Amino acid sequence: MTKLCRYGRPGSEKPGLIDSSGTLRDLSGLWSDLTPERLSPQSLAQVAAIDAATLPAVEGSPRFGVPISHVSKCVCIGLNYADHAEEAGLPIPQEPIVFLKAPSALCGAHDDIPIPPHASQVDWEVELGIVIGSTARHVTEAKALEHVAGYCIVNDVSERSFQMQSSQWDKGKGCDNFGPVGPFLVTADEIADPQNLRLWLDVNGTRRQDGSTATMIFSVREIIAYLSRYMTLLPGDIIATGTPPGVGMGHKPPLWLQEGDEMRLGIEGLGEQKQTLVRWTR
Amino acid sequence: MTKLCRYGRPGSEKPGLIDSSGTLRDLSGLWSDLTPERLSPQSLAQVAAIDAATLPAVEGSPRFGVPISHVSKCVCIGLNYADHAEEAGLPIPQEPIVFLKAPSALCGAHDDIPIPPHASQVDWEVELGIVIGSTARHVTEAKALEHVAGYCIVNDVSERSFQMQSSQWDKGKGCDNFGPVGPFLVTADEIADPQNLRLWLDVNGTRRQDGSTATMIFSVREIIAYLSRYMTLLPGDIIATGTPPGVGMGHKPPLWLQEGDEMRLGIEGLGEQKQTLVRWTR
Repeated sequence: MTKLCRYGRPGSEKPGLIDSSGTLRDLSGLWSDLTPERLSPQSLAQVAAIDAATLPAVEGSPRFGVPISHVSKCVCIGLNYADHAEEAGLPIPQEPIVFLKAPSALCGAHDDIPIPPHASQVDWEVELGIVIGSTARHVTEAKALEHVAGYCIVNDVSERSFQMQSSQWDKGKGCDNFGPVGPFLVTADEIADPQNLRLWLDVNGTRRQDGSTATMIFSVREIIAYLSRYMTLLPGDIIATGTPPGVGMGHKPPLWLQEGDEMRLGIEGLGEQKQTLVRWTR
Repeated sequence: MTKLCRYGRPGSEKPGLIDSSGTLRDLSGLWSDLTPERLSPQSLAQVAAIDAATLPAVEGSPRFGVPISHVSKCVCIGLNYADHAEEAGLPIPQEPIVFLKAPSALCGAHDDIPIPPHASQVDWEVELGIVIGSTARHVTEAKALEHVAGYCIVNDVSERSFQMQSSQWDKGKGCDNFGPVGPFLVTADEIADPQNLRLWLDVNGTRRQDGSTATMIFSVREIIAYLSRYMTLLPGDIIATGTPPGVGMGHKPPLWLQEGDEMRLGIEGLGEQKQTLVRWTR
């Protein structure tokens, strides 16, 4: 029903909406920002009731920011596609593997990704992102989807040597701009079945990942119920649900992203992202 | 120079200051909240210049909340005391082990800690917390302390079976109220040497941890410089710097916290915390 976004320069994004013809329209007359509180069912119903044609069209092609301000946490599920676990040479998990991405790593869907100093193994991971709309604590699988505001693309960019340097992965997942999110948040009612979405990623025009959320080991509802038994999920929290096969690490020899490389990635119904790897500057 | 806090019920805390006689005084005439922006050197100088006696004294004994609102990330360093690595049966790390604590786990210094359902191995970890005051990105060790607003106590409460269930620790570190912070943030100028602070923790009146930040493997300035090479540290970010020996896991047989148990913990110059383990309720 609704594609919500935040557009403009980093730190001064405004809330927006993509109408059915694909036009970006300004929502700042209604909301000062797209904060976690705006993701409640009531609030989303309010915006769904608006006739988009009455909202001002935005001129030009502004940057898309992270579609939610003040993300409290970004929870990631590791090895959630059986064939990706296999390419990583790791056993198929019996329970979800949970780690966190630093919120400071999140960025807009088309932002450049600086290669951190001493990085040599930057890799890609297209993932279905779940955006939580209402507080979820010990929810059942049957009720889990009631807590979802919507879905978005997340590229869980990873530097494998940083990730594997100790036992803990967070360092290699948390570098600045290692978490492009968006371009928009698509409200849950637009996604008939989150377990039947095609997702793909190209590097420099070559298809590297091409999968379906149908082959997840743990489904969206299982992940939400599981996580909510350990930590309260808050409005605006993002859950990245794992990546299908085809990451650079899985090739023999492995493929790593270099300066100038371009990633394009998409998920059915959720739009597309595009990022360029750039030289790090202070 | 200044002990800053947030006091009041969860979600409606006000900013406060502890004066030199230990009286809690209300800062809400100056600041609406103690947000990350308030931690800048300029802002801290502004509050230091106030004559505390002119601020209203707060009646009663209100709850202390997390001393900073909107913590963006809580970064933790694992096994940062050589003798703690030994008791955990793990090798002394050559580089800091980095993981993240979910911000939703942070709570006030004296809040109860509910035992999550199916938890059986709840453990304690007194830690020196660093609070970042200004953005740190690729800073040198020499300049690292310039980015510190202050210090606080963090209890890095951990459920060991959740922590060790997969390779990734975050799940067992991120349960609700597994991160008591405070009771206050002590500004950096009050702490002559962060590498010479005694820290201790009692369970039910028995001393279980008794160490000194002098025996850290990686110092405060090394940790800040190291982390800032991987992820930008933002104002309000908290870094928990690891725990000295004496955790429950290190005992033979191990000791785990039970309903009704009380932890008291303190760090020289940073005050004391006290938490009671309680039954989980929805």
